[in-house]
Amino acid sequence: MAALDAADSASAQPPTFAVEAAGRLPDYDAVRRAAARLDGVAHRTPVLRSATADARSGVQFFFKCENLQRMGAFKFRGAYNAIAALDDAQRRNGVIAFSSGNHAQAIALAARLLGVSATIVMPSDAPAAKRAATAGYGGEIVEYDRFSEDREALTKRLARERGLTLIPPYDHPDVIAGQGTAALELFEEHGPLDALFVCLGGGGLLAGSVLAAEALAPGCAVYGVEPQAGNDGQQSLRAGRIVTIPVPKTLADGAMTTHLGELTFPIIRRHVRDIVTVSDEQLVDAMRFFAERMKLVVEPTGCLAAAAAFEAAAEWRGRRVGVLLSGGNVDLAAYARLIGGG
Amino acid sequence: MAALDAADSASAQPPTFAVEAAGRLPDYDAVRRAAARLDGVAHRTPVLRSATADARSGVQFFFKCENLQRMGAFKFRGAYNAIAALDDAQRRNGVIAFSSGNHAQAIALAARLLGVSATIVMPSDAPAAKRAATAGYGGEIVEYDRFSEDREALTKRLARERGLTLIPPYDHPDVIAGQGTAALELFEEHGPLDALFVCLGGGGLLAGSVLAAEALAPGCAVYGVEPQAGNDGQQSLRAGRIVTIPVPKTLADGAMTTHLGELTFPIIRRHVRDIVTVSDEQLVDAMRFFAERMKLVVEPTGCLAAAAAFEAAAEWRGRRVGVLLSGGNVDLAAYARLIGGG
Repeated sequence: MAALDAADSASAQPPTFAVEAAGRLPDYDAVRRAAARLDGVAHRTPVLRSATADARSGVQFFFKCENLQRMGAFKFRGAYNAIAALDDAQRRNGVIAFSSGNHAQAIALAARLLGVSATIVMPSDAPAAKRAATAGYGGEIVEYDRFSEDREALTKRLARERGLTLIPPYDHPDVIAGQGTAALELFEEHGPLDALFVCLGGGGLLAGSVLAAEALAPGCAVYGVEPQAGNDGQQSLRAGRIVTIPVPKTLADGAMTTHLGELTFPIIRRHVRDIVTVSDEQLVDAMRFFAERMKLVVEPTGCLAAAAAFEAAAEWRGRRVGVLLSGGNVDLAAYARLIGGG
Repeated sequence: MAALDAADSASAQPPTFAVEAAGRLPDYDAVRRAAARLDGVAHRTPVLRSATADARSGVQFFFKCENLQRMGAFKFRGAYNAIAALDDAQRRNGVIAFSSGNHAQAIALAARLLGVSATIVMPSDAPAAKRAATAGYGGEIVEYDRFSEDREALTKRLARERGLTLIPPYDHPDVIAGQGTAALELFEEHGPLDALFVCLGGGGLLAGSVLAAEALAPGCAVYGVEPQAGNDGQQSLRAGRIVTIPVPKTLADGAMTTHLGELTFPIIRRHVRDIVTVSDEQLVDAMRFFAERMKLVVEPTGCLAAAAAFEAAAEWRGRRVGVLLSGGNVDLAAYARLIGGG
């Protein structure tokens, strides 16, 4: 369910992997290279319109449907791009990731497609459905006890012992560049929009979207959207430095991140118009809207951008506004409860 | 919810409107003219793939997503095409339709877009949501008592008194031609498929699909799919004449038709490979598959074709199979119950 892979940075400490992973920020050329790698592998997801949403708001909305991406979320783009960029020796040795959410499935699937072995470090109490999905894509799952073991230490030890390359969920140049291909496709197909709303967890999708917007739609106002309960990104933007918060409680389980990344933050900061927040109630309203009117299953995290865009509609009347629907991976029983109630 | 507009021919008598409406069968040129009329008005709906469905079955599936069509079903195509084909005097006087389902909404929306007034005859106990949706698209609703009034007589009287043109839900050449544009788009984008599965109520979508297949994919095996409880089409194909059955009880409320049309039957009969049936349990399984794996809300009737295609997978291993997902209009609470249970 975790579109933005909350749990992947849910420790109270800033990550130490980012600096090791890469020393430089990705640029628009990296997004273009990612698009070339993903061509014919990732789905070029449809951009859907809604006459109902437009009529209600006076805005022209363009919904980029990454819930219809392979494995159900944009995460496939970054994972595939990062693994495809590895050299032969790295590919032979395999990759490792820690995640209980969409990043795990993305790495497992991308690795399988590229003939690379994938090890996924997952808490022993992760939902069976998520373990099954990851295993179904061919990932080898290593369990750890969330209460007694240090995930980062375990992952680093495994990586060292087995010669595995760590693919972090967002703070990696090739991951960011890969995520940027969603906004790239949106701008390619619909030109420079007036505004673009993007969900924000660790910042991979937002940073990648910024790279695409800077090149293709420099006048486009790009917004990051967080859950009200976890506005570390908003705080960071205001403070001018990465602010770390406790793990937030929100329906948007993919945005339960505690801090932005060392690579994502500077990219986001230099271009984003603002970072705004929405309530869980707004997420459920949006989920119901997508099911009822657009016939789309969108997970709570995937509704962040839409909920904020609907809220801001008065400001964008008569304008063209892009909305990234980031994913659709939600337990069916939980989904039924959320859309069926009320 | 009624993708194929069950209730629209739920009387025990064959319709008398078809012969009045038109004396001749539509052909492929009519489908092409419909496509030109619908260009830029109807959504060119995406054709989605599923690696999961393909891996499970060994078939290459192409899902044409008419649940993502305007007003949530393919019905918009035929309704718009039929109203757009009217002459000036007919347009000025307005149109009338009887339906409590997708055809009502399709007529109301298409009429509004074309600046034509629409009268919809609907039972007084039709669900409030359906009345609201139809009224929301600008249709004037005339209620009748299902138990004491004859819908056809009422509709004919209104048409005569007010000079309205009746647009029937399926047995009309321009409706059939409009519905054929969905399969036309599928073949245009993906070439001549090996098989095509299409849901079957009154036969508008299936007959239109046959017209497209005959011209663009003559070797394609076209199947009609009915609910087990209402196999009048299958019986008709076997008998070589239109067989009328009592109103069937099925989750596929859009396929609760009692007989094929006088225009749809001869077209279906001359080309269709077979008409097959699926159970309500198979429909629910398919609904859950689309929600869980493809992130699509598909109504029960909209799952008919997919359920049959999944059932027939062994026969089509290694081949390219098209599936029309006809609609996604299902009451949210009912939908949540169906996908959440089990």
